[in-house]
Amino acid sequence: MKSINFDHISANPLLPEVKEAMIEAINKDYHNPSSQHRDGEEAAEALEQARESVAKLINAAMPKEIVFTSGGTESVNHAVKGVAMANADKGKHIITSNIEHNAVIRSLRRLKSAGFRVTSLSVDENGRVDPKDVAEAITDKTILVSIMHSNNETGTIQPVEEIAKITREKKIIFHSDAVDSVGVVPLNVQEIGVDLLSFASNTIYGPVGVGGLYIRRGTRVFPLIDGGVQENNKRAGAENLIGIIGMGKAAELAVRDMDSRYHHLKNLKQKFLGELPDFIDECIINTHPQHSLPNLVSVSIQYIEGESVMLMLDDDGMAVSTRSACATGSLRASHVLLSLGLSHADAQGTLVVSFGADNTEADVTAFLTSLKNVVTTLREISPLYK
Amino acid sequence: MKSINFDHISANPLLPEVKEAMIEAINKDYHNPSSQHRDGEEAAEALEQARESVAKLINAAMPKEIVFTSGGTESVNHAVKGVAMANADKGKHIITSNIEHNAVIRSLRRLKSAGFRVTSLSVDENGRVDPKDVAEAITDKTILVSIMHSNNETGTIQPVEEIAKITREKKIIFHSDAVDSVGVVPLNVQEIGVDLLSFASNTIYGPVGVGGLYIRRGTRVFPLIDGGVQENNKRAGAENLIGIIGMGKAAELAVRDMDSRYHHLKNLKQKFLGELPDFIDECIINTHPQHSLPNLVSVSIQYIEGESVMLMLDDDGMAVSTRSACATGSLRASHVLLSLGLSHADAQGTLVVSFGADNTEADVTAFLTSLKNVVTTLREISPLYK
Repeated sequence: MKSINFDHISANPLLPEVKEAMIEAINKDYHNPSSQHRDGEEAAEALEQARESVAKLINAAMPKEIVFTSGGTESVNHAVKGVAMANADKGKHIITSNIEHNAVIRSLRRLKSAGFRVTSLSVDENGRVDPKDVAEAITDKTILVSIMHSNNETGTIQPVEEIAKITREKKIIFHSDAVDSVGVVPLNVQEIGVDLLSFASNTIYGPVGVGGLYIRRGTRVFPLIDGGVQENNKRAGAENLIGIIGMGKAAELAVRDMDSRYHHLKNLKQKFLGELPDFIDECIINTHPQHSLPNLVSVSIQYIEGESVMLMLDDDGMAVSTRSACATGSLRASHVLLSLGLSHADAQGTLVVSFGADNTEADVTAFLTSLKNVVTTLREISPLYK
Repeated sequence: MKSINFDHISANPLLPEVKEAMIEAINKDYHNPSSQHRDGEEAAEALEQARESVAKLINAAMPKEIVFTSGGTESVNHAVKGVAMANADKGKHIITSNIEHNAVIRSLRRLKSAGFRVTSLSVDENGRVDPKDVAEAITDKTILVSIMHSNNETGTIQPVEEIAKITREKKIIFHSDAVDSVGVVPLNVQEIGVDLLSFASNTIYGPVGVGGLYIRRGTRVFPLIDGGVQENNKRAGAENLIGIIGMGKAAELAVRDMDSRYHHLKNLKQKFLGELPDFIDECIINTHPQHSLPNLVSVSIQYIEGESVMLMLDDDGMAVSTRSACATGSLRASHVLLSLGLSHADAQGTLVVSFGADNTEADVTAFLTSLKNVVTTLREISPLYK
């Protein structure tokens, strides 16, 4: 039996309509969308229909601005490395923040060894970048600013519109990693004014292993994957059409259900935050009270280890995570939480509780009850808890 | 209604068992294989089972040597760029051939602009690289040899074992693009002695958008996609588990059915080649008589345009291609055919006829009959045909 999922940030279930669309695509045996015969054209039509649905989700000016990728991580690599390589003649300075996902951090580390210089901005105790700091960090060699839309461990949303105003004025390319935002909160690339935006299908209950990269028309960026002329010559390789069709359907539904999903999630989050003090004392909420995703709470439970809580909750049939699933196996405390000013001990005692469309209020109550038992047991044996 | 598929090189249909496995995976709603709770572990088990099946298909020494990618093109980019970047301190010289897929050619072009030097070897009139030429091209700065296993336009198979002997002796990394070979012909990475091998799921009737990269243990290569610790830290990004499960099932079946599929395909190819002269005169076979894939014939039909033949066959319900689907839209003659010494006119008159498990002998007869009518019509209006 499956656990109750409070780890939606690591994996969302597929929506029934998405499953249906994917199964239909499997049974259709589409030919190659790049082939010029009828069967190829049929596949190309399905591909372009999905592209239109995805373009609508973020209000891209035209579907051609959407490049399908193998997921958020590829999108981020494409954006960061592709902009750096294509604009190195103008300068080799990049600005980012201390709380980015490893996809950004490690892409930038790779670029550093190729001679790029990176300024990484700190965040305030609420986990937000100050746009003024971005403005101050810009030099005449700056070619790219990459600041995430929302953080995958805390849910805190960054002031991307204000940052975009600065970058546009200075004619510097702005990329935002919006993997955990697109489809969860309304997001309009034209209003924000970003040049590149990375996002993923699973965030909108589409299949894992599919993502999108928005590239504003006219933005100079090299492909990450070179080869054929697929995706308007921006990303080579035969397209994962079954996955893309799933993502297209998920995008349609995300547009349709954005409001109701948002309110459902926010309601669960408020119930959780409101009732948490009745179940657990001495804990720190790392999620911004206003500027944050509706579906995620980061809570540091003092005097115990998040890892132990996670494993005991697992025995109780509750799936939760302690940090980004992408960092599994690392024993170091989360760089995101340390950047907020948390102590190592508190960072290690952190749970990331993430809700989904499939959760109910009863789930939240069950979770809090279970959490209380687990925390009580662990604190009883903790030398740190008085 | 679907056409009869003679364009399997662009798209193979999914096997019924693959469809079943993928639909089962869709309905299972797997969690994230990197998550540490039970649901994550269940996903990780499915992932590792697929990895074992794929490792068996090419006889890798251990499953860990397999990295799942988004397809053959990503695998090639990962191998070529990853080896170049990781070994640049030893030298910046790379050897390849004139008939590689655009994934290799364009990856190398990207590296050239980063200061790498590339020697591209010509092929003989049968389309094969001479291993002696590889040996002669090696300098003390050579870090990588990338020669494809089989060519996607002609089906000709390269002397990779002999090339591997040379590279191993000189301790140079050898990558082979085997996207059109793995699962079609028996292939054993340990016997061949390659260090990296790129391959794709759709070649074995698995889903498009999934592939594999074999990296022999100990080979120095950087990831193409940086971020999380997935795929043993070699390829970041949450895995396309539904696709990978499909590929795993396809790999199992490819091992089981290798012989019968090979003989079925070879039989169709022999029938086609044997009967072709009874239907069409004045054509050139570009496929090697011995060293070639069992499922592909490249035929240049003189005095007419391949594009027109393809479109008229399409009207007759037959899907065929004129070249790599990845090069669709390019009006230039195929670099592969020109490398064989074909004239521009003959190269433009070329059809790539590729058979699959779903083709029958009756299909071949129907195709030849249709082809004869099309060619007769086109030659009647051709100013070149006397």
